[in-house]
Amino acid sequence: MRNRFAFVGGSSGKWHVTSMQSVRGDELAPVSHVDVATAANAPAAPSAGWRIDGQISNLRYATRMELTALRSRQEPLGRPQALVAAMIPIRKTAGWWDLAQDERRAIFEDTSRHTEIGMRYLPAIARQLYHSRDLGEPFDFVTWFEYSRSDRQAFDELLGLLRATREWEFVEREIDIRLELQS
Amino acid sequence: MRNRFAFVGGSSGKWHVTSMQSVRGDELAPVSHVDVATAANAPAAPSAGWRIDGQISNLRYATRMELTALRSRQEPLGRPQALVAAMIPIRKTAGWWDLAQDERRAIFEDTSRHTEIGMRYLPAIARQLYHSRDLGEPFDFVTWFEYSRSDRQAFDELLGLLRATREWEFVEREIDIRLELQS
Repeated sequence: MRNRFAFVGGSSGKWHVTSMQSVRGDELAPVSHVDVATAANAPAAPSAGWRIDGQISNLRYATRMELTALRSRQEPLGRPQALVAAMIPIRKTAGWWDLAQDERRAIFEDTSRHTEIGMRYLPAIARQLYHSRDLGEPFDFVTWFEYSRSDRQAFDELLGLLRATREWEFVEREIDIRLELQS
Repeated sequence: MRNRFAFVGGSSGKWHVTSMQSVRGDELAPVSHVDVATAANAPAAPSAGWRIDGQISNLRYATRMELTALRSRQEPLGRPQALVAAMIPIRKTAGWWDLAQDERRAIFEDTSRHTEIGMRYLPAIARQLYHSRDLGEPFDFVTWFEYSRSDRQAFDELLGLLRATREWEFVEREIDIRLELQS
């Protein structure tokens, strides 16, 4: 269970929910707070909330050149100025998962420039991807973003660019949860 | 938990163990039988045995051309003449998992011809890959092979070819378990 985390939405937690929007597909129960913990130490889903597990895993598309560029610019979660976060659980279509590796890669980067778009917003917007599909969760991924209050507009721009890509045509469920650190 | 299976080694089960060999790294407790079941319906590890879970997931390296070739030749598990099986749990090094996707693909196929080697033994040797790494198991994969008694030599040849590849330099633990259907 190394590197497995749980996102628990309920009525208490470190992160206060400022907005929650179902972008595509079924809604997720509205909650006022989200906590993130290692899966082994996380509580079960609250009765009026949810728990989504995700695993930090190896990268599935990035080439060595992209990885080197990413690592030279990206910053970790937990920076003191990062008082704002976004949690975006996503599920892709069965059609996406039936594609071969070269077809998924071509859509992900050659057509949609997923890595390149994210790179433009580094180091301001820190990002961690968690894989949920093979854990049997109702989402394939959770992406967690952290940034400062002054980068909120940049984050909206980043999301807008990603949602306009060909890759996003394969997204069948997406929830957009914005959070602020409890003060 | 869709597509998650459990391999349970103990003193009873559908498959009788004819040999068990630690090819590399730590041994696995010797058992006389192995059962395969969906994870939700599988028992816990027997006191003198083990349970390894694995997930059937999307392909990580195959291109569309390779996938089409594979699908035109491969046969499913459970064929009536497939009275012999091999279960090969493997763990790769941290160095492997730190590689970028293009580097892993280059070693897997361009250098080691993993898919091409397997293809030569289709349809005789059926094969199913289960992913275990993201489930927190002590192995990264379990591969289950099924074939007829007359294909045992061909299977040894296939394994010999794979173990001689550059990819196998990244294997740090490998157990080779041979099985026959209980008659």
